Amino acid sequence: VAVLFERMVTVGVGLIGGSLAGAARRAGVVCHVTGVGRGAPNLGVARRRGLVDETSHDLTVVKSADLVVLAVPVAAIVPVARALAVHLRPGTVVMDAGSVKRPIVEALEADLPAGCPFIGTHPIAGTERSGAAAADPDLFHGATCVLTPTRHTDSEALCRVEALWGAVGARVVHMDPGEHDRALAWTSHLVHALAYTLSRAVGEAAPFFSALAGPSLRDATRVAASKPEPWRDILLANAEAVDSVIGAYSRQLERLRSAITQGDAETVLELLRAGCDARKHMEGEGG
Amino acid sequence: VAVLFERMVTVGVGLIGGSLAGAARRAGVVCHVTGVGRGAPNLGVARRRGLVDETSHDLTVVKSADLVVLAVPVAAIVPVARALAVHLRPGTVVMDAGSVKRPIVEALEADLPAGCPFIGTHPIAGTERSGAAAADPDLFHGATCVLTPTRHTDSEALCRVEALWGAVGARVVHMDPGEHDRALAWTSHLVHALAYTLSRAVGEAAPFFSALAGPSLRDATRVAASKPEPWRDILLANAEAVDSVIGAYSRQLERLRSAITQGDAETVLELLRAGCDARKHMEGEGG
Repeated sequence: VAVLFERMVTVGVGLIGGSLAGAARRAGVVCHVTGVGRGAPNLGVARRRGLVDETSHDLTVVKSADLVVLAVPVAAIVPVARALAVHLRPGTVVMDAGSVKRPIVEALEADLPAGCPFIGTHPIAGTERSGAAAADPDLFHGATCVLTPTRHTDSEALCRVEALWGAVGARVVHMDPGEHDRALAWTSHLVHALAYTLSRAVGEAAPFFSALAGPSLRDATRVAASKPEPWRDILLANAEAVDSVIGAYSRQLERLRSAITQGDAETVLELLRAGCDARKHMEGEGG
Repeated sequence: VAVLFERMVTVGVGLIGGSLAGAARRAGVVCHVTGVGRGAPNLGVARRRGLVDETSHDLTVVKSADLVVLAVPVAAIVPVARALAVHLRPGTVVMDAGSVKRPIVEALEADLPAGCPFIGTHPIAGTERSGAAAADPDLFHGATCVLTPTRHTDSEALCRVEALWGAVGARVVHMDPGEHDRALAWTSHLVHALAYTLSRAVGEAAPFFSALAGPSLRDATRVAASKPEPWRDILLANAEAVDSVIGAYSRQLERLRSAITQGDAETVLELLRAGCDARKHMEGEGG
């Protein structure tokens, strides 16, 4: 296995940063990983679990990095990148792993030093848990990782970042940043908005209902156990697309509701069957 | 273990009927089970898997039953009960296992012969799979089973049916039929309506999006893989309550959407946090 980046610094050693660090070390594609974070207990967990070689509270450690991974929550990516930009040496590749791409890619292509190529990435993996304790070097195995190059992207850096994600088991696809954000509004941001809303609505209707909940409600609300702060930031960072998909979703739901109240069995069946077919198609493709 | 019913006939040997038959036989609370159905292949599966002692296509076998279980889809329960009513001998207990209770309980309390007590039941268990092949004698272990007695209910029959559900591992609760239907509109019927709608909406927006779907979309749409016909019937049978909860849910979703489009970070966080708290409460109670 060829080494892709001698020294990697991951800023943020949570579920994504910790998993990537552990996976990249295991795959032998990086030689040394420094985990940077604010919380000493979490950094301690990352060290004890062997996800990173060393840890630091100090952003200036990026000065010796060949690759800087911005694995902090979406709202922190741009501020953190701006704070560390002054310490970067020419040639250091910077990548993020945020769930929203267009605002981040636009800001960092403008703000990072000219000699430091930026690659926007989004590994579509995760659980409702967080922190280095939840990190798992197998997290990206079989997951899709979206890279969002633009006409400004350095192709050699893109190639190495793509190889890194491939080495940790991800299937890499390329998308335009805005196209990514519109697609993820459907497949992830909407799903989280619905799950939090369902959980809240059922809880308000009658908290004791949970005793009457089968696996369907528990599955449908699983991701509502995720920490709300990162999701607030994702929904706000992608507000335009999220607004549009919630609108489209609500119109579809209203069609079903209207068919139910009118006792229109044929339309109800047609709408449910289309959902069932789409679900089977999804399972066939996505696994 | 005391035998509760010498001879049980289950009309319908699918996921619920097959699981109950297998579980009751294993628990020793019934001596002999006949599975009645129309599809020869499914009956063959039930026999080979040892879920039932014998099978039949003929509803008249209920004449020798101590317990008749109506384990057919919701829309078939009342017609099937009417068709077999003439063959029942006095003393035979009849129960259903449908996901909607008020219309069924009202119809069967009126239509069954006077000497044949009816008990409405709803085991809250299931998967998106169906048929005798999916039946599992452990299906009801730890599940809630709602019994919906009314002022007309025979208390001795209620007691034996309650013991049967207890013997197969369910936690039994009693509710008024209408109260059951309003609660299940929240915890199950709405959840299915949302999952089918989400699956359909994502599929229509762009079928290829499924390659970008993480586990959140797959979990949120899992139940949309369920056969649509039974869910058409459930949603229509409980139309009034379903209409009301879809309305309440849509208003909650609209609140979140409006906070997102206004960039109101505080309200977005508050709404997500309420969902997260409700989800944790649910997990604590429901497991």
